[in-house]
Amino acid sequence: MQRKWGAMEALFRPRAVAVIGASDNPSKLGSHVMRSLIEGGYPGAIYPVNPGKEEISGIKTYPSISQIQGLVDLAVIVLPAEQVPQILQECGEKGIKAMILITAGFKEIEDRKGEQLQEEILRLAERYGIKIIGPNTFGVVNLHYPLNASFTPEFSRVKKGKISLLSQSGGMSHLMAFLSMKENLGLSKIIGLGNRCNVDFWDMLEYLNEDPETQVITMYLEGVDKPRRLIEVAQRMNQKKPILAYKVGISSTSDRASQFHTGSLAGNYEIYLGAFRQAGIFSVQSSEELLDTAKAFSLSLLPKGNRVAVLSGQAGPGMAACDVCEREGLSIPPFSSETQKKINALLPPLAIRTNPVDMGPAWYDSNAIQGIVEAVLEDQGIDAILLCIMFASANRSAVGILADSLTQIERRKPILCCISAPGGIWDEEIQRLEASGAPNFQTPERAAKALANLAHYKMKFHRE
Amino acid sequence: MQRKWGAMEALFRPRAVAVIGASDNPSKLGSHVMRSLIEGGYPGAIYPVNPGKEEISGIKTYPSISQIQGLVDLAVIVLPAEQVPQILQECGEKGIKAMILITAGFKEIEDRKGEQLQEEILRLAERYGIKIIGPNTFGVVNLHYPLNASFTPEFSRVKKGKISLLSQSGGMSHLMAFLSMKENLGLSKIIGLGNRCNVDFWDMLEYLNEDPETQVITMYLEGVDKPRRLIEVAQRMNQKKPILAYKVGISSTSDRASQFHTGSLAGNYEIYLGAFRQAGIFSVQSSEELLDTAKAFSLSLLPKGNRVAVLSGQAGPGMAACDVCEREGLSIPPFSSETQKKINALLPPLAIRTNPVDMGPAWYDSNAIQGIVEAVLEDQGIDAILLCIMFASANRSAVGILADSLTQIERRKPILCCISAPGGIWDEEIQRLEASGAPNFQTPERAAKALANLAHYKMKFHRE
Repeated sequence: MQRKWGAMEALFRPRAVAVIGASDNPSKLGSHVMRSLIEGGYPGAIYPVNPGKEEISGIKTYPSISQIQGLVDLAVIVLPAEQVPQILQECGEKGIKAMILITAGFKEIEDRKGEQLQEEILRLAERYGIKIIGPNTFGVVNLHYPLNASFTPEFSRVKKGKISLLSQSGGMSHLMAFLSMKENLGLSKIIGLGNRCNVDFWDMLEYLNEDPETQVITMYLEGVDKPRRLIEVAQRMNQKKPILAYKVGISSTSDRASQFHTGSLAGNYEIYLGAFRQAGIFSVQSSEELLDTAKAFSLSLLPKGNRVAVLSGQAGPGMAACDVCEREGLSIPPFSSETQKKINALLPPLAIRTNPVDMGPAWYDSNAIQGIVEAVLEDQGIDAILLCIMFASANRSAVGILADSLTQIERRKPILCCISAPGGIWDEEIQRLEASGAPNFQTPERAAKALANLAHYKMKFHRE
Repeated sequence: MQRKWGAMEALFRPRAVAVIGASDNPSKLGSHVMRSLIEGGYPGAIYPVNPGKEEISGIKTYPSISQIQGLVDLAVIVLPAEQVPQILQECGEKGIKAMILITAGFKEIEDRKGEQLQEEILRLAERYGIKIIGPNTFGVVNLHYPLNASFTPEFSRVKKGKISLLSQSGGMSHLMAFLSMKENLGLSKIIGLGNRCNVDFWDMLEYLNEDPETQVITMYLEGVDKPRRLIEVAQRMNQKKPILAYKVGISSTSDRASQFHTGSLAGNYEIYLGAFRQAGIFSVQSSEELLDTAKAFSLSLLPKGNRVAVLSGQAGPGMAACDVCEREGLSIPPFSSETQKKINALLPPLAIRTNPVDMGPAWYDSNAIQGIVEAVLEDQGIDAILLCIMFASANRSAVGILADSLTQIERRKPILCCISAPGGIWDEEIQRLEASGAPNFQTPERAAKALANLAHYKMKFHRE
């Protein structure tokens, strides 16, 4: 990867980072960038650059880039816009290949000067072969290296995982990272594209498609200048990895806002959706759905078809899940007679033992739950399992036993769960379940919707 | 209230509770009920009844109900179904007015015997004037008394608040209580109706409508035997308090499951929705929406119309909120020229200063955010505010300043928020914001949807 992706490697795995505009004044973004790198455990060399300082955060500080003796792969810029062309030249002379331009005030502002400035830095970047993330970005995070080259040190708290977030909006990146923390969802890279001077969605798609640390690519988009280019690249990627897109700008208001925000018209929403479908990009409708679907893709197998078994420790959550399944075109068929016999032997007659199964009277018989799940996994007429269990004081052992069992069984069908308990109960058990490949969701409806998305993806883009 | 609601007061505020089938064996539900009462801080007398024990959990235990000397208002029953008629007679002789029948195995089972048994206890209950919650229920919780008369001691961890949950499904009650804990949402009463022997949705609606501790009534329904009765009662209540309903059973599968679960056919979903509309009951489509909407009603004012200002610290979340607003029929109009002038004075020209406002460059100027919110609150052409702020290290003080400001301003417009941060940051500030009447939601989309629901409720049911 090193040769082809020189600039991208310099961006995501830099051997040394210069922070141009570093500071130790907490009211300056430069101080937050320094904290991000240091507190995030960045393993390479950090070179703060600030002509007025000898030391920042205990690290030797340089008056200018040219004074740095060692090699530098990546520069993070937090200086006013008008200083950027000069800095860019210095970075070019130094041989820096990647730049994160946090500074705002370019194409997104109403003033024509902003656009001119962005054109100027684009010319300079091309001359020196520098790839620029931004301008007008919070930065870039690679949780695997680790590198937190952003103005938000708290990004380093996100769990390391396989989902990369590619976003036009810093606000949405922050939102999704915070939601990921709350739901213990692992991320790989968090990328704020900002104004996309010379690194755009398609460039990142190509890189992430080859990135061994990324298994699922998620995008938040407002609008792109060359949608055709995005579509072509995605088509060429040919579903090697799932690409999920949350496109805003349905409304005329948000469309107008987009132009101001990152300099692009959001454009006709329906046209985007159609193009995404052609390109094998899977569309979702909310930030929550984006993360839920990414979680499902990152942890679970794809179902071979749309036939779902709904197994619920209590009837109500199972019914809520059934409603979403049917609304989404999934089927909840009867079991094979062999499966049905096994379930009948495990549950007393007063339970509902057909699909959906109300394991109710079994909810303090963890072995019965385990037996039912195993029987249904073997049923040839079932493609996936939705499993709902709500904690009650008497069923405390159920999820641990289930996690043990699922960790041992090799399986070819997805199991998506809504297992819910007060905080601190079942946290460890749910982590083990997820590690076994059975993702957990906050509500039965969200679990069902995530399963439906896996099935729709499989049917739309993975026909064999 | 005492006279009219004798049995209901005995249920929700009993002076003494008997636990028939009490136990100290953790594999028995009777032990969990004991823990719920004790750990939940129940202030009245507890009388465990179990012929084989002299003491349970350090409390003197009685061989039968008749041996208890003091008065008993409420009996919680955790004995096998066939013993229930005998117990019911003893409770009647003792003068007990309310009963929680946790025992399952009545109308919901396939065996005709279950239905006969339920008919028998109904006859006995009528003879003695006993109100029965259940059978086949987890119990009842009144967080205000406090009384946790359920088999789930963890319900006592839910914050005390103004929302009552009325549910046909124990599983959904548990789910919603756990979600409430995670979102710091306050509940008043959690009621598991189970098979509804002689206390049904309408009885509870009438009681909760008069209950000073309940401000918002939420229902989870599968199906009711006498929908007309429910509708009549709700109509009579005439929007004194908002009633929110989450009705499952859209699908044929869940409809069938309902019959087994609580002995009622879910029935035609569309007919329910139409009847709810007529009766002033507001329908929602998921457990999450039920809680979000209840939260909005319990903390916020209603908007006078559908004109929304979207104020966002970062553009992306504001755009996501705009999309939901427009999809839901809310309008995002231009500000009055006076408001616009004030905003222009607070934000630099490179920000988008019209509606939706991107307060971006102000996101470390907390006073500008405060000024914008105050200006928009005074704009006669705006009915409600959606406010989104994502944490970044440099804007840490913004939400505290805003909470202070909103606590001081008397206002006539709802402010719904999506303020998001890593756990432990802004928790206290968000609590203060919510205490000031500005509910917070997990995502901009959910905040916008909750606001739309308030506006739709106002327009449908509150025309003046």
